[in-house]
Amino acid sequence: MDRKNININETWDLSLIYHTHDEFYKDLELAKEDLHKLIQMKESFLNNVDIFLEFHELYTILSRRIQKLYSFAHLHCDVEPQHQEYQTMLASVFALFDQVTASLDFYDVMMIEASDQVHLYLEDNRLADYRYTLSEVLRGKSHILSQEMESLLSKTSSISDISSQVFDAMRLTYDDVEIDGKKQTLNSATLTEFLKNKDANVRKQAYHHFFKEYQKFENVFATTLGGVMKKDAFYAEAKKFNSPLEASLFDDDVPTSLFYKILEKANVEYRPLFHRYNALKKKVLGLETMYNYDLNVPFVQYDTQKYTIDECFDIIYDVVKVFGDDYVDIIKKARQERWIDFHPHNQKRIGAYSSGCYDTRPYILMNFIGDYQSLSTMIHELGHSVHTYLSCQNQSAVNCDYRIFVAEVASTVNETLLIHYMLEHASSKEEKAYFLYELLENCVGLIFRQPMYAEFEDILHTWAKNGYPISSQKITDLYYQKNAEYYGKEITMDKYVGYSCYYIPHFYYNYYVYKYTLGMTVSLAIVSRILNGDTQQKEAYLNFLKSGGSQSPVDLLKNALVNPLEDRLYDDAYHYFQTMLNELEKLL
Amino acid sequence: MDRKNININETWDLSLIYHTHDEFYKDLELAKEDLHKLIQMKESFLNNVDIFLEFHELYTILSRRIQKLYSFAHLHCDVEPQHQEYQTMLASVFALFDQVTASLDFYDVMMIEASDQVHLYLEDNRLADYRYTLSEVLRGKSHILSQEMESLLSKTSSISDISSQVFDAMRLTYDDVEIDGKKQTLNSATLTEFLKNKDANVRKQAYHHFFKEYQKFENVFATTLGGVMKKDAFYAEAKKFNSPLEASLFDDDVPTSLFYKILEKANVEYRPLFHRYNALKKKVLGLETMYNYDLNVPFVQYDTQKYTIDECFDIIYDVVKVFGDDYVDIIKKARQERWIDFHPHNQKRIGAYSSGCYDTRPYILMNFIGDYQSLSTMIHELGHSVHTYLSCQNQSAVNCDYRIFVAEVASTVNETLLIHYMLEHASSKEEKAYFLYELLENCVGLIFRQPMYAEFEDILHTWAKNGYPISSQKITDLYYQKNAEYYGKEITMDKYVGYSCYYIPHFYYNYYVYKYTLGMTVSLAIVSRILNGDTQQKEAYLNFLKSGGSQSPVDLLKNALVNPLEDRLYDDAYHYFQTMLNELEKLL
Repeated sequence: MDRKNININETWDLSLIYHTHDEFYKDLELAKEDLHKLIQMKESFLNNVDIFLEFHELYTILSRRIQKLYSFAHLHCDVEPQHQEYQTMLASVFALFDQVTASLDFYDVMMIEASDQVHLYLEDNRLADYRYTLSEVLRGKSHILSQEMESLLSKTSSISDISSQVFDAMRLTYDDVEIDGKKQTLNSATLTEFLKNKDANVRKQAYHHFFKEYQKFENVFATTLGGVMKKDAFYAEAKKFNSPLEASLFDDDVPTSLFYKILEKANVEYRPLFHRYNALKKKVLGLETMYNYDLNVPFVQYDTQKYTIDECFDIIYDVVKVFGDDYVDIIKKARQERWIDFHPHNQKRIGAYSSGCYDTRPYILMNFIGDYQSLSTMIHELGHSVHTYLSCQNQSAVNCDYRIFVAEVASTVNETLLIHYMLEHASSKEEKAYFLYELLENCVGLIFRQPMYAEFEDILHTWAKNGYPISSQKITDLYYQKNAEYYGKEITMDKYVGYSCYYIPHFYYNYYVYKYTLGMTVSLAIVSRILNGDTQQKEAYLNFLKSGGSQSPVDLLKNALVNPLEDRLYDDAYHYFQTMLNELEKLL
Repeated sequence: MDRKNININETWDLSLIYHTHDEFYKDLELAKEDLHKLIQMKESFLNNVDIFLEFHELYTILSRRIQKLYSFAHLHCDVEPQHQEYQTMLASVFALFDQVTASLDFYDVMMIEASDQVHLYLEDNRLADYRYTLSEVLRGKSHILSQEMESLLSKTSSISDISSQVFDAMRLTYDDVEIDGKKQTLNSATLTEFLKNKDANVRKQAYHHFFKEYQKFENVFATTLGGVMKKDAFYAEAKKFNSPLEASLFDDDVPTSLFYKILEKANVEYRPLFHRYNALKKKVLGLETMYNYDLNVPFVQYDTQKYTIDECFDIIYDVVKVFGDDYVDIIKKARQERWIDFHPHNQKRIGAYSSGCYDTRPYILMNFIGDYQSLSTMIHELGHSVHTYLSCQNQSAVNCDYRIFVAEVASTVNETLLIHYMLEHASSKEEKAYFLYELLENCVGLIFRQPMYAEFEDILHTWAKNGYPISSQKITDLYYQKNAEYYGKEITMDKYVGYSCYYIPHFYYNYYVYKYTLGMTVSLAIVSRILNGDTQQKEAYLNFLKSGGSQSPVDLLKNALVNPLEDRLYDDAYHYFQTMLNELEKLL
């Protein structure tokens, strides 16, 4: 379908950002002027508190402008990539951004050199809004090098990114899979389908044809995966961290003990719950030998209904009314002001996201097809949008942005509440079982699989740190072993399991996956408490949604009553999983 | 065949290095003691001229020991890789070598910081032998950074090598080629064969099946090729060079003007000669359209005879007697003392080389099968061995090693003289034409193709230096254009020509290929002058063989009367090519 044939009320209204293109170009010029002024203040911005304030106010104005310019250009490009003018707009924003980064590279080193002075300035109440973010800059004191060393280090970016670039460029092709005598094309998308096939032979074929290509290029993938680990180890050492883990967690101000607590809870204490779930699958499917590639076969079947956009909104209003009228009203506003671009069409970006900034609405892109997944995606993205909206309403521009570390809480809370709504309104045992199955599958990926990934990548990082030679043999042996422990004795490992790590992009993201686990654990704890009528938790959660990035992620979560350093959070989350598993076991 | 079945007189005698394994281990221990003493002299070695001399004498002893240990271990491993003891020996030499590099990393920075003092010390006659090599260390003055910066830079090696590693790990497979209805396996080795096939369709098939795989992975190869260019540009900038070219040539003390002179001579002034040769091929083969992949079809046919090892030696004595009895005697010694490991057998390394050091014979590994190619390889490697032998005889241990830059002269002089011998002794017009064809093909690869490669890599380096985005489209367009210019109007470019650059490992070697051209140009000039009875040239050449690495490469060549900065050298070499081409044209 072409975009022009779509009902305009079901597209987003980007004219709320800039009414005309002229406004965009005018703002772009103003941003350049801001930058010019900032550069001229290099020698003076630390001279006294007035200039210091002026500099930071101007810096904030510049950041806001760039974010607004970027939002306008990238949102347009994602639905109409063929429009050259939007592409040019986007390129000019990126060029400006690069210019800002290069021109203001003096900032961190100078701030840290003058940190005593900066602390004094921050006592001035006019700088109250800046206290948290600027203290974050100063926190880097032990890890800043001389200007000369920092400059050399920043130039290494041209060579340190090769591993990730090669990984992205490796596009493999796979042998066809034969299903009912017909050859079917195998790729990432169809692999997921084929692994759900009822015929064990189809699943095996698909898995083997797919991962033998990774085995074929194992030395390339071992080089890039080893390369990215060496890169992380190099930067960690250069910046005087004790380990790549410490370096990665430093930015979020998270202690390494938190990381290992998650691994301990997920991979040791509560892993038997996952093994119990696997055993249930094996029993229900009646398989004598269950391979790791058999776990995606739906063992609970139910055909969900179709939904119109109006029906989705009505269900969502109903689900989120637990948070009160204000929350519902924001979603009504999203509909009225056209924050959401619903329909898939030619050229439009796939997937879904919520994006925006302090000076725009929080826009949602999705590819709505009216199934349960569309409804779930919609309430997920609206969770992000409400979080953004409330943060921007309640925080200054300096403090509104929240980090990835806490970003998935608002979305997965909504997604989980939706499943509970479905469970409550289920009209049959089958329907109820199906939504419990959906819920448990969702949980498994985030609270069991990701911590296994995290342990694997932590070991690889440690190898790189210690200069231990990283061969494909070593990597695949380790991954095989970690998977065998993860899946447990009920499940048989396929010979290609070790190579499947080469397919996962997240290992290139420098300790990213544990954040998924934390986000979901927090959400499950919050949902289970709210469903148990814990009004204190509900209030604390709503306050969290208004807090943006005004504190460290750990402090934000503490204030939301889900302290990630305490056992209680994890115990609540995994007990919730256990309760749901109990219910499913009863139904089957 | 197994090694034990081979006539011992046709294997090398490594017991001349160490008679027993105990001697190896004893020397290894002594080397460790040497290193320990050197490390202890860190703070004192610059204190006065006596300690300075003592330090360098010890350093020389250590270097000699390590080279001897390495020779013994690696030569054994190359013929008997299955013997674990030799592998362990080799690993322990590498470990020692890494330890030396790491422990003595203070040396360059401290020497340069004290360069005024070092210059004074070098006036002492006891240090006469060290004058050249130590002045080479001091020459690095403008490009040495602080110890802290050098240390950070040396750590980048863990991440900067990924591009080359991925390139080495990329093992492609190719669709079969159909020849006379039979499917034949295509790989690097058979490609060369298939491109010589008389059937144009076989050549096209082979070329297309081969290079379409490079097109398939073009983004991977563009990333690694672009990556290695960025790496070279990064180090050049970090070490304060004006360009990657300048940085690369600095080590050999070669001016960039020499590089561009080679490109000007080969790619502009004398390229029409190559086009004339292509036109001759096209005419003789009677092709209406001649594609680039058609150029390997032998257009002159002749079945060369078989040779025994004795026959080869007899011919070689005859060929090199132009250099006098001393030269011949060294080759007789090589035979008597068993410097050469002739025969291919199970597990033995493929290819051929001459290797050794100050305290060993110059050993030759080859895979002799008795054809003309074996004879040619033998005289080629003996050229290296005689060069090494004479340098070690006439220079101190500090000055005997010659660089890659001049290494190919002695070998290709011999190879070219052999072809002339064959031409003189040819008994038919066909035989004569065949050896002229052999000679011209040899020359084309080195004095025409490599300079085209050099221009291509220079442009890529310049792109990287200027931060110009390097995509596969840009790389392949450039390579297509450079090939079209190179082959000339008579030859038609295939659509895959642009991708064929992704197959060539030399682009990962940081301005290596121009050295091939220089070596061959020098050899051709020397051979043509000697054949014209120029006794002054002959004497100068023999002196060159005795000079090792006692001077800069350019000075060594100047003294050999082949000044690479002057036009005369190139004019003589390309005129020689022209003369041989004239002769071939007359014969066909």
